[in-house]
Amino acid sequence: MNGAQSLIRTLVDAGVDVCFTNPGTSEMHFVAALDTVPEMRGVLGLSEGVVTGAADGYARIADRPAATLLHLGPGLANGMANLHNARRAHTPMVNIVGDHATYHKQYDALLESDIDAVAGTLNGWVRRCGGAAEVGADADAAVAAAREAPGRIATLILPADVSWGEGGQAGTPVPARPAEPVPDGAVAEVAELLRGAEPVALLIGGHACREEGLRAAAAIGAATGAKVFAETFPRRIERGAGLPNIERLGYLAEQVTYQLDGVRHLVLVGARSPVSFFAYPGKASDLVPEGAAVHSLAGMEQDVVAALTELAAKVAPDTEPPLAAARRPELPSGELTPQNWADVLGALLPEGAIISDEANTSGLLVPGATAGAPRHDVLTLTGGAIGQGMPVAVGAAIAAPDRPVINLQADGSALYTVSALWTQARENLNVTTVLLNNRAYAILRMELQRVGAESSGPKASELFDLSHPDLDFVRIAEGMGVPAGRASTAEELAEQFSRALAEPGPHLIDALVPPLL
Amino acid sequence: MNGAQSLIRTLVDAGVDVCFTNPGTSEMHFVAALDTVPEMRGVLGLSEGVVTGAADGYARIADRPAATLLHLGPGLANGMANLHNARRAHTPMVNIVGDHATYHKQYDALLESDIDAVAGTLNGWVRRCGGAAEVGADADAAVAAAREAPGRIATLILPADVSWGEGGQAGTPVPARPAEPVPDGAVAEVAELLRGAEPVALLIGGHACREEGLRAAAAIGAATGAKVFAETFPRRIERGAGLPNIERLGYLAEQVTYQLDGVRHLVLVGARSPVSFFAYPGKASDLVPEGAAVHSLAGMEQDVVAALTELAAKVAPDTEPPLAAARRPELPSGELTPQNWADVLGALLPEGAIISDEANTSGLLVPGATAGAPRHDVLTLTGGAIGQGMPVAVGAAIAAPDRPVINLQADGSALYTVSALWTQARENLNVTTVLLNNRAYAILRMELQRVGAESSGPKASELFDLSHPDLDFVRIAEGMGVPAGRASTAEELAEQFSRALAEPGPHLIDALVPPLL
Repeated sequence: MNGAQSLIRTLVDAGVDVCFTNPGTSEMHFVAALDTVPEMRGVLGLSEGVVTGAADGYARIADRPAATLLHLGPGLANGMANLHNARRAHTPMVNIVGDHATYHKQYDALLESDIDAVAGTLNGWVRRCGGAAEVGADADAAVAAAREAPGRIATLILPADVSWGEGGQAGTPVPARPAEPVPDGAVAEVAELLRGAEPVALLIGGHACREEGLRAAAAIGAATGAKVFAETFPRRIERGAGLPNIERLGYLAEQVTYQLDGVRHLVLVGARSPVSFFAYPGKASDLVPEGAAVHSLAGMEQDVVAALTELAAKVAPDTEPPLAAARRPELPSGELTPQNWADVLGALLPEGAIISDEANTSGLLVPGATAGAPRHDVLTLTGGAIGQGMPVAVGAAIAAPDRPVINLQADGSALYTVSALWTQARENLNVTTVLLNNRAYAILRMELQRVGAESSGPKASELFDLSHPDLDFVRIAEGMGVPAGRASTAEELAEQFSRALAEPGPHLIDALVPPLL
Repeated sequence: MNGAQSLIRTLVDAGVDVCFTNPGTSEMHFVAALDTVPEMRGVLGLSEGVVTGAADGYARIADRPAATLLHLGPGLANGMANLHNARRAHTPMVNIVGDHATYHKQYDALLESDIDAVAGTLNGWVRRCGGAAEVGADADAAVAAAREAPGRIATLILPADVSWGEGGQAGTPVPARPAEPVPDGAVAEVAELLRGAEPVALLIGGHACREEGLRAAAAIGAATGAKVFAETFPRRIERGAGLPNIERLGYLAEQVTYQLDGVRHLVLVGARSPVSFFAYPGKASDLVPEGAAVHSLAGMEQDVVAALTELAAKVAPDTEPPLAAARRPELPSGELTPQNWADVLGALLPEGAIISDEANTSGLLVPGATAGAPRHDVLTLTGGAIGQGMPVAVGAAIAAPDRPVINLQADGSALYTVSALWTQARENLNVTTVLLNNRAYAILRMELQRVGAESSGPKASELFDLSHPDLDFVRIAEGMGVPAGRASTAEELAEQFSRALAEPGPHLIDALVPPLL
């Protein structure tokens, strides 16, 4: 078997059996080898932002990595924004980046570029395959590195001649290093704080935002009076009726200041200390309240759920966590507004839904409207690089074909990776995209004011305006094979949303929701 | 004035008065400052691949750099593939990459990433602005670096607090270092070769592909019997009736081997020695014929046109260069074929057209069909990273609003930066896109065979097939505000092409041309 065949065999044996790809000539032997390993599923994206975002969404739902196959440096670069988002999400992922044959690199052919340097900025694991015989072991090491808690991006650079070279050997899966134990004394120290008189807040992140962690955190809050928050952009947070409703820290510094007001001790549980998303003139970057102390119950690389469970056993042994009651908004009527579209979503959200949330400013009222909806998962924009929502929906739908995936998608962000719609159609994925179309980069209008820029005039405003010409997302979606309709009233949105959920395959609703601000 | 204002003032004073952008919060002061410097034109792209590709196309036609304004590391990364192409084209460009405020970087906010490392892979000029007072001088240095022969990418990283900080001072334009003189003796050495008995070929690139260089090279060829070739992917090559018709080296190694057969001396004039685009098992990477010697008349950083002119004066003092006669194909009829669509183009190409060529396999017969068409410029896919054609058309049309721009665009490449169509509509650019729709990554079908992969089966084939579902480029274009039609016969293509050229603003024709191979 050649290097490519051993690579795919090894990945499958290690539990990686989906490969999102946009290949080129240097990856042709990998592509050919797909037919020799029937367990590996290849999924085509029409640009690499779709490929890497889909792998991110897949792993967030499947709890195991997908592979990507990317074409040389430019392919990697095109996928970098969603790799950045995946890095911030601590998503496990195995990138295979094809490269020129080893002996060809000296010629600096036109597509040559510094793959290693670009991959190195992901702060993950990077290795260059040295020969066909080593590919199997390299791939096993990559999968193990990707799965190491809390999850990271492993990039394997695969020269074309290593791929086509004979002597490939399938590897033997290497167990990922388990999450580290919680440091001695951390639980006792936090328990002591919680028993004290000063106000405490827990800030949970990563795996703590799944049911077990949420229940423990909510019980701790109920028993001790501590506030409990989830990080602003969790990789995956479970919500809905029958689960604790944990508030996320806000995106705006002003919101966080309000949420943490009066807190004297901030306890981090798999989360980072809160900082402002951007700097603003004359405003603080560090959002820990003045005079408050920051403590760590467990770091991301540690077993955050075990830490919370142990802490709950100490301070809330008999406390049942408060759970969200089943309660939906009434189905609203009238022209779409930032509130009523969220109410439509809350009223109709199906059981077991996965929400890929890139609604940005249009989504501010969604958490309230869906808190009592049936149980669902929310996947957020984890690294702030827009263009993540549509590809993440692709990956989530492939990981969970029986669950409805809802992509809440802002218009300004949609065009980065819009060809994800084509992959949704090609793979017949159950993704319903609600395109929140306010015909603007609304967030930038707001940010222009927030940064205190004085002299804003027509040229600046023009750069936030997406209405010259209007983007017609119905046609764009149809052009990519996705049935689509337009909704300008709550009734139309409700009718189209219900129909989209009832039919298999992807749908898009161009929802004309005016800007919130 | 603040740093941002001084930056824009300085750029304009240095001759950079178009800025392609997709800004974010950290660039808000730059955006606000646009209204204080009326000479600077801001052009919005909906993703950064459009922004950087447009800046490339602009400079190739305007012969001076445009600026880009990009949002942090992810914005730069999204633009990297077309920056790679621009690097290979030696296109002058000034990237402004916004960054977090200097004091904010320590917090590793979510959008933080290693901008310097990624920008560093462009092998150009990179500087991080240290303070508002230095921005003007930094910008002048960036423009001078960008314009240094043969042209390169200068990246200025602009922290938000430098942008909003007071004390900005407009700089004083710095002259770009002129092209280096041709080394002593080089002209005489090549003249000697040309007078000798052994077969010689000239390979010209860069600025030598403009009229003056072409005429000198063609005269040399006519007087001495030397073959003359242009590099495979020139930044800009002038063609058509009344100009020498210089053949480009082929994309496929087999073509180059045929073209250079028998050559004993290969003389490089602002071009690189030919190498295979990719490596193939058992085939040579270096395409210089065995036993042939490689000589340099002038390097890219030297005055290649002066070198050719001086050489022509020595070896062809009385020779008029052979020029292409005005001759167009007959307007063909019938179902579209790889030949007849090119004939439609040749029959109808308007005077002074600019062709942005990303037709890939579908474009193989275009050079022959257009050789005797009215004079035009061709902008090629200079770095091999697909997704360049549509954005380059945007930039070319902004640089030359009175010239018709024709984008020959392969379907497989189109979805990378398809939102360039929206910018074409917004700016009402005279771009006619001929979308060569063969419903496949046809080049990869060919490459799969060429790399000698044995076991290709249905899973591999599926990854090159764009027909499940068909991409409907008419709807996609209309969704972005560009009028569009579909052509399946030569008559339809001719009719729609003529109409598109007659009407102002952008148009797209979805031309159903079957694969060449």
